[in-house]
Amino acid sequence: MRGAVIYGARDIRFEERDDPKIIEPTDAIIRLSATCVCGSDLWPYRGIEPVQGPAPMGHEYVGIVEEVGRDVREIKPGQFVIGSFFASDNTCEICQAGYQSSCIHRELMGTIGTQAELARVPLADGTLVATPDLPPADLIPGFLAASDVLGTGWFGAVAAEVGPGKTVAVVGDGAVGLLAVLAARHLGAERIIAMSRHVPRQKLALEFGATDIVEERGGEGVGRIKELTSGLGAHSVIEAVGTQESMMQAIRSTRPGGHVGYVGVAHGVELPGEEIFFSHVHLHGGPAPVRRFLPELVDLIWKREIDPGKVFDLPLPLDQVAEGYRAMDERRAIKALLWP
Amino acid sequence: MRGAVIYGARDIRFEERDDPKIIEPTDAIIRLSATCVCGSDLWPYRGIEPVQGPAPMGHEYVGIVEEVGRDVREIKPGQFVIGSFFASDNTCEICQAGYQSSCIHRELMGTIGTQAELARVPLADGTLVATPDLPPADLIPGFLAASDVLGTGWFGAVAAEVGPGKTVAVVGDGAVGLLAVLAARHLGAERIIAMSRHVPRQKLALEFGATDIVEERGGEGVGRIKELTSGLGAHSVIEAVGTQESMMQAIRSTRPGGHVGYVGVAHGVELPGEEIFFSHVHLHGGPAPVRRFLPELVDLIWKREIDPGKVFDLPLPLDQVAEGYRAMDERRAIKALLWP
Repeated sequence: MRGAVIYGARDIRFEERDDPKIIEPTDAIIRLSATCVCGSDLWPYRGIEPVQGPAPMGHEYVGIVEEVGRDVREIKPGQFVIGSFFASDNTCEICQAGYQSSCIHRELMGTIGTQAELARVPLADGTLVATPDLPPADLIPGFLAASDVLGTGWFGAVAAEVGPGKTVAVVGDGAVGLLAVLAARHLGAERIIAMSRHVPRQKLALEFGATDIVEERGGEGVGRIKELTSGLGAHSVIEAVGTQESMMQAIRSTRPGGHVGYVGVAHGVELPGEEIFFSHVHLHGGPAPVRRFLPELVDLIWKREIDPGKVFDLPLPLDQVAEGYRAMDERRAIKALLWP
Repeated sequence: MRGAVIYGARDIRFEERDDPKIIEPTDAIIRLSATCVCGSDLWPYRGIEPVQGPAPMGHEYVGIVEEVGRDVREIKPGQFVIGSFFASDNTCEICQAGYQSSCIHRELMGTIGTQAELARVPLADGTLVATPDLPPADLIPGFLAASDVLGTGWFGAVAAEVGPGKTVAVVGDGAVGLLAVLAARHLGAERIIAMSRHVPRQKLALEFGATDIVEERGGEGVGRIKELTSGLGAHSVIEAVGTQESMMQAIRSTRPGGHVGYVGVAHGVELPGEEIFFSHVHLHGGPAPVRRFLPELVDLIWKREIDPGKVFDLPLPLDQVAEGYRAMDERRAIKALLWP
């Protein structure tokens, strides 16, 4: 089979790789229906995360089950399934508490690499959620979004305790930030402030339910959020970038007693203890336990109640995966969808 | 009147100060029935916080109302009242959300200085809670504890989402940590691990409801907590010290999805963003909104359901306030109570 492999910064190649095989009896092999490039894939692509190449890439996936190991009970060949970036048993105490991305048996799908024609999924019964039937083609981008960016934005909103009557601010206008807007709307937020200075992203944010756009960043952005909230700050702020500036912008935009939900993978972030202490905010986040939300998200997409697939604005054949990275790196695309 | 004044590191004097007067129509003047020395008073005492002396000291207080301003409606002269270290209006949006210590009109009692015979309490109706009647003398230490250390330990436990069925660890064996144990017991925790290497404090922790004692600190302490929790970490960890080591000990002792409630005033703390991100813990804390809990705590003490006054192990006449600081600094006393 063929798949994407990173050799070094800005060096993504599409090449022949070994076909995946069942290794553990709890594995499944899926044939990808669609995959995509993640904002977090840009960290190694840009050389900010060191690359030990050649290494397979990709951790977002939907597909048809080809084969299952002998201990797989629920997932069947022929099903259309959605998984997320950590395989998880979904039965340990941590999974049962809703933190499947910290499952005691978790395995990182990124090291398996799903920007490929086929992929092995460990702990298939715990990891995969099947649709009620084979989905129509136009729903596939939505299910693919659920695999990571929708589930991550959703977790950001839940971690920020978004709910009815609340004012929510979203820091970051990538796919995760935009889908956090969608999640906040679905969870009943009264006012949703998207922080973005890119017109096409602002447009999608408004389509997903944003009520206000703030173009300013840093201290000025915080000032605007305060102006819009009687000087107090937002109740809930979702951080979907992962830098020092974005984290501080999120924390300082939150009122005392409010909640910051951070889902941007932290890079070089140091939180000042005294300021955090006196800010009185709640902090929660991390790698989203997408699996917690998948059954609900799959249901909402299946019933066409949400349309998260709109974040994909650059469909490409899988063999042009390198162009997907380039377009996202240069911010020509919000998110590249790859058709095998 | 006379009161405690700090002139510099380790230089506390008991001297004549001006009698307090009603300044704002919402003020009250109270005659202190008891006051005390706080662990946080030791930061300036030790010179870790810079001292702009001479400055009055003290922010814990119970007493009898002597006089009220013309806009005070609820609080009456002659009542026995308990307040906390921030005066607050108890009506603004932040107060109503339970964060009175971030009240938009808050005033720091520490700058007023309650280690004295008399004190002015701003925003008396919002700040003070009266007992049903004048209390018997043996309950006064308990009410005084409610003014700060009990309310702070309680907030730590609530911020750490302590509840039935949970395993709780408490980092710090000062009065706040010990009373966090009492709070955790009252809130229904199943297992309460006190981290302490001081035998008299261990004894009081066990009396307050601790089920286990861990003497190890740092990485070894974390290892012991993991051993006691099937390798996962505690559900809820209360941090009651405020140093880098204690914060990291608390965070690393918490399971993914668990909660850290931090109430030790942070000094020189920097939280590593990547580690926090992947830890999956919830972080919340800060200056305790003691006022949120006061009505309930006053009721529990009045009914003798809890006895937090046990943390005072060194009663002194107020004029010996300097000895109270010395004894706490040298860890000869958990907490000094001062009788005017």
